[in-house]
Amino acid sequence: MAGASTTPRAGILVTGTEVLTGIISDRNGPWVSVRLRELGVDAEMIEIVGDRPEDLLGALERMRAAGVSLIVTSGGLGPTADDLTADVVGRFCGREMVLDEPLAGRIEAIVKPMMARWPNADPEAMLRANRKQAVIPAGATVLEPVGTAPGLVVAPADGHVGAGAPTVVVLPGPPRELQPMWQTAVATDAFSAAIAGATEYRREIVRLYGLPEAEIAATLEAAAAGGLSLEALEITTCLRRGEIEIATRYEPSAQAQYDAMLAFVRERHGRMLFSADGSTIDEQVAALLTGEGVAGGVLGAGGGAGGGAAGTLAVAESCTAGLLAARLTDRPGASGYFLGGGVVYSNEAKTLLAGVPESLIASVGAVSVEVAEALAEGVAGRLSADYGIGITGIAGPGGGSEDKPVGLVCISVYSARDGRRITRSPRMPGGRADIRDRSVTVALHLLRRLLLGGADAAAAGADPLAG
Amino acid sequence: MAGASTTPRAGILVTGTEVLTGIISDRNGPWVSVRLRELGVDAEMIEIVGDRPEDLLGALERMRAAGVSLIVTSGGLGPTADDLTADVVGRFCGREMVLDEPLAGRIEAIVKPMMARWPNADPEAMLRANRKQAVIPAGATVLEPVGTAPGLVVAPADGHVGAGAPTVVVLPGPPRELQPMWQTAVATDAFSAAIAGATEYRREIVRLYGLPEAEIAATLEAAAAGGLSLEALEITTCLRRGEIEIATRYEPSAQAQYDAMLAFVRERHGRMLFSADGSTIDEQVAALLTGEGVAGGVLGAGGGAGGGAAGTLAVAESCTAGLLAARLTDRPGASGYFLGGGVVYSNEAKTLLAGVPESLIASVGAVSVEVAEALAEGVAGRLSADYGIGITGIAGPGGGSEDKPVGLVCISVYSARDGRRITRSPRMPGGRADIRDRSVTVALHLLRRLLLGGADAAAAGADPLAG
Repeated sequence: MAGASTTPRAGILVTGTEVLTGIISDRNGPWVSVRLRELGVDAEMIEIVGDRPEDLLGALERMRAAGVSLIVTSGGLGPTADDLTADVVGRFCGREMVLDEPLAGRIEAIVKPMMARWPNADPEAMLRANRKQAVIPAGATVLEPVGTAPGLVVAPADGHVGAGAPTVVVLPGPPRELQPMWQTAVATDAFSAAIAGATEYRREIVRLYGLPEAEIAATLEAAAAGGLSLEALEITTCLRRGEIEIATRYEPSAQAQYDAMLAFVRERHGRMLFSADGSTIDEQVAALLTGEGVAGGVLGAGGGAGGGAAGTLAVAESCTAGLLAARLTDRPGASGYFLGGGVVYSNEAKTLLAGVPESLIASVGAVSVEVAEALAEGVAGRLSADYGIGITGIAGPGGGSEDKPVGLVCISVYSARDGRRITRSPRMPGGRADIRDRSVTVALHLLRRLLLGGADAAAAGADPLAG
Repeated sequence: MAGASTTPRAGILVTGTEVLTGIISDRNGPWVSVRLRELGVDAEMIEIVGDRPEDLLGALERMRAAGVSLIVTSGGLGPTADDLTADVVGRFCGREMVLDEPLAGRIEAIVKPMMARWPNADPEAMLRANRKQAVIPAGATVLEPVGTAPGLVVAPADGHVGAGAPTVVVLPGPPRELQPMWQTAVATDAFSAAIAGATEYRREIVRLYGLPEAEIAATLEAAAAGGLSLEALEITTCLRRGEIEIATRYEPSAQAQYDAMLAFVRERHGRMLFSADGSTIDEQVAALLTGEGVAGGVLGAGGGAGGGAAGTLAVAESCTAGLLAARLTDRPGASGYFLGGGVVYSNEAKTLLAGVPESLIASVGAVSVEVAEALAEGVAGRLSADYGIGITGIAGPGGGSEDKPVGLVCISVYSARDGRRITRSPRMPGGRADIRDRSVTVALHLLRRLLLGGADAAAAGADPLAG
């Protein structure tokens, strides 16, 4: 690929025995990787190591040997004795450690008011522990603390290891500290120098729903066989939460190739391609409910769109028990269209909160198409919402039968405006968490279709939402 | 530390450009790390690299140079052209690639019935793509597919690189395939040979709530200064979701040191230490509600415990909008005590689903101690539950005021049996997601205390749940 060899490459080093041993999961590596790509810098690797100094130093040396020009570390800047990153990075860059007195003063000014929250703590021990955080490699650029830990940008000392040695950006572990400090780091001269020569890339994401990953492989094969030139496109496909994502990176000169590839995929996969602009199903549903429509997206079959669908939503969830509501309200501003709903785990809750008749549950069972429809319609009525969603299913591992196996989930979306509804009862693969998570994704896709004007009467045999 | 040098060390290699570039987050690295530790094997590093063969090979070679005796890979076994792990591992281990015909037949038998689900797909292209998955390194041990991809255990070929070369376990990327195949891998002779000599460790986790991480550092310092011997203990502390976790690993001979350390921590931090046996707050709440009590845990102040607290629970959530309900039902069997509740995002929902008087909301505002209490009591009444929880707050980023800033969350837990209640209105740090997540954790801790017999009248000034 033209220009690839000039792209600066980076290593991301996540430190922490608690991360390495699986006690907590890392969110920083992927986040920094995305930020680097936006700057035209490829992450060569993300490596997670423990807290011992030899682990850190070993990883830094492996990254230097792999030829990266920038290393970003996260973690190991806390007040406890196992927080050693600054010290090890200083050694790696050939710089002595010095106490930065003004910085120590600024950290103390941050810590002192916090101590009032912990009346039983020993203030001297806390200040001593926090003072350690002001010992930094000589000549490093300090990134002011967002919590109590300062970050650092450390270039190799003159004459140390040679001109090719990487610059190291040292950031704290908590994402809410790391993320704002990243912006500060990027603005420093030392950082700019380390990524000089980054190539400009474009990056596009296309999302499809309702087909297997192998078929995308076949489509890309057919595109190449049909004479389309894909060489200048770096294409990655992946299956996520039941959706397929095609991420493509390319230099601006390859725009025509990208457009041709996208047209080919759109031609072959029609309405299964629900997002051509990188928008997520969550974003599309929110845009439809607020009346903003689906900007730049693909509206799919069923016509209708935009402002006409705007309205309010209520949900009644049994097996997903709040996951759909929680996902809908991840987004700030959800209160503009989301009213609430019922977590209807018990049969009584289905009746009391969504008005499902007891007799219906007794005759067809709580996990049934009929109850899903009654939940959707009932909760919309109860909260006077324009749209309602009902979910009832068997998340397992227990509770399944031959007739209604684990993974069977009945999902219904309903429009109180005109009585349209779409109902499906797919059998979800995977364990309890997968089944619950996938059910929420299917509900969002059904809602999108309803908001775009679809209804069950129009559904065809080869329905991508059927399976 | 005695014995540490004999512990076999492993590298975990997660492949996939979609993981490296932050499109999807890795769940396999931490999971495999925990499984390895259970077997007495330390993960030396978890490394994430892209899909290009040179990335994979580079990472395998770095791990060999770091001296690991086992490498576990995940990903890159799919049907698309960017799935190359088997091929690269074959080269790394000095083994030729061969088509395993019987395996190809077994994969075809798996794929064929799946094709009915995708009536629009090209069956020949799918079979060709899946056939590639049966090309494996000669002499490798095959792990039967859970999805369509077989896993592998590949020992270095005789005479290849030398006796110290690592064995590679090759697993697919989807966690629901990887996890069962791990069990199969562990049972193979090639795996046993690679981890021969693993040291037996014990691993204990202690959890505290309501104090800063720096104070734990001070406590451990004081323990050492007071003459306790901590050298044989490998102690890691971390802050997670507002709780502090102290994870300690040690050889069985160091049991007395561990017991002494735990006694010291318990002595200094009293009821803030809520779990001495590794149980989570989620597990404790579930055990209390089912009447199993808190086995081996710390019951804390407030007396009472065990079977007496068993009962049913209902929740009414505004700003957390289903997160608490979803977390409570993560656990199979939650239907034994969790009835459901209201996602009361709008004011109307608070009134309609939990019976909060409109006049109360009008006079004190939706985010108030009074409304949190009315939600807890109202939802318990509505569903005839023994216990109720109400949460209302400002998750931001908008909607805050000087009086009621972003992060202010009012949380109340209520016992319908005897009218006891505990209510707090902490101001949570962080962004929208942090605020929502922490609110759920606080609610669980308040519920635990209520179930152990506590109530607001008994709350003291230095209350760990106040802040």
